[in-house]
Amino acid sequence: MEVKNKYIVIKHQIKDAPKVSNLEVKTGTIVLSLASGSDDIIIKNLRYAINFDTFIAIDGVVVGKVVASGNAKFKKDDLVLGVFTCAEYSLIKEESILRKLESVTIPIYGTEVLGFNGLSAYAGFFELCKPQKGEKVFVSTASGAVGNLAGQYAKLLGCYVVGCAGSQRKVRYFPDGIDIYFDNVGGEMLEAAVASMRIFGRVAVCGVISEYTGGGKKASPNMLEIVYKRINIRGFLAADFLNVFEDFFAKTLDYLRTGKLEVIEDISLGVESIPSASVGLFKGENIGKKIINLAEE
Amino acid sequence: MEVKNKYIVIKHQIKDAPKVSNLEVKTGTIVLSLASGSDDIIIKNLRYAINFDTFIAIDGVVVGKVVASGNAKFKKDDLVLGVFTCAEYSLIKEESILRKLESVTIPIYGTEVLGFNGLSAYAGFFELCKPQKGEKVFVSTASGAVGNLAGQYAKLLGCYVVGCAGSQRKVRYFPDGIDIYFDNVGGEMLEAAVASMRIFGRVAVCGVISEYTGGGKKASPNMLEIVYKRINIRGFLAADFLNVFEDFFAKTLDYLRTGKLEVIEDISLGVESIPSASVGLFKGENIGKKIINLAEE
Repeated sequence: MEVKNKYIVIKHQIKDAPKVSNLEVKTGTIVLSLASGSDDIIIKNLRYAINFDTFIAIDGVVVGKVVASGNAKFKKDDLVLGVFTCAEYSLIKEESILRKLESVTIPIYGTEVLGFNGLSAYAGFFELCKPQKGEKVFVSTASGAVGNLAGQYAKLLGCYVVGCAGSQRKVRYFPDGIDIYFDNVGGEMLEAAVASMRIFGRVAVCGVISEYTGGGKKASPNMLEIVYKRINIRGFLAADFLNVFEDFFAKTLDYLRTGKLEVIEDISLGVESIPSASVGLFKGENIGKKIINLAEE
Repeated sequence: MEVKNKYIVIKHQIKDAPKVSNLEVKTGTIVLSLASGSDDIIIKNLRYAINFDTFIAIDGVVVGKVVASGNAKFKKDDLVLGVFTCAEYSLIKEESILRKLESVTIPIYGTEVLGFNGLSAYAGFFELCKPQKGEKVFVSTASGAVGNLAGQYAKLLGCYVVGCAGSQRKVRYFPDGIDIYFDNVGGEMLEAAVASMRIFGRVAVCGVISEYTGGGKKASPNMLEIVYKRINIRGFLAADFLNVFEDFFAKTLDYLRTGKLEVIEDISLGVESIPSASVGLFKGENIGKKIINLAEE
């Protein structure tokens, strides 16, 4: 059976600010059955998670359902999670990019939390910052996909947490100073956080939204304070912390199952909504993870 | 026996740039013998090491010779090392600030290397940066008291080392990028180093000479590069690394005894030279550690 298949391509590389016209929705066709002997897997995609690098590489975290499988590890109707190009249907030739969701008893809407967004928040907070209960934690873009999780992890540990979404005035909520800053924005917010930091303060630099589009002021943190307060500023990528993935996954799954961790998502419908949703991410329009629902389960 | 005793005081707190007139040489008197039952120690100071915080706290690393001692741990003519106010003679009431040099067979001119300058270089390089043989190391103010030691430690480990004293052009000597930057200056040099850094690069921020006097441009390192290259920027004070002091001391003493580590000093004579030598430090006039010789051994 051949069906139409909408998918997204990068039409123009971005210069300066990303625009809707950088991405294009195309329509192709896909056959939903496999030739005899094939070990491919065909997925009907249910949802797609928008990332900041959508404009550079269109791959994202996709949750889908197996339509047909020549691979013994996957069978029809299995729910799977993987990182690949967004489309209504995907033909997967490399089984290693898929993870089965059969053992996950939470609703699929929480799956991104168990992926790189969650790992970013988990590794940045726990592995880089080595937090202690009672420490003062500041999170920028606390309503974003990673920031909201970092804030929730910090609360679950028993930290005093202040999040902000747009204004460095929130730093003033820390009369005694900040121990940990989970930084997603850079710029003046980073300067304000460093200025408010206590000795041995730690900054996990997860993102630099203020600089993604080239317009924002660059951060000039006070280096003298960095020396005297022995501040540690460290950039990181979640991919460097696959060694703690199992710990992260088990703990976070438990938090999700017991309702201790809240999943915050911002949902749009259909492949057609990807270009505007991707641009919206840079404008801070989303509250929680930006998700595209592609089909009902 | 009472003798005259020249000493240094802070006359005016510094504003903006430090000036010779911020410090004042005074002359008092001191009795060179102790009352019966006293456990004080009187030191004739031989040399004084100038630090960047001379204008804030006049204490420095002093090497001296015991003139009289009521303390059983020290006897007349012992060579001692301590951190206290610079003067020709000092009356010490707290034995814990003194360290005996009797077991040290190197010339006393190397003693600052075995103090906080050495520990700064050692801890900043080895403990913060976790260097590997063959890595590319950049040191700013490489002719300074700490920088020259950091560079020497890096060479002894088998790193490729480039030092600079004043110009960020030296960063271009690293076509393949820098693994470790031992930063003493901040400002544009730090920006240049971050821009040239390889992934998992480490910056040990030991000092920020460009900002000490308020005039220099503040560093705006590229935070996007800090994320993508997972750069770690960490301020530190040697005092936080007393746990490695014994290791540092034993290794460095061995390097000094075997001539592998070169002691680089810049010497002026007499208490009167302290104000101008202290100002000169901020102008980068010294090559190696700035030392004031107070008396011959």
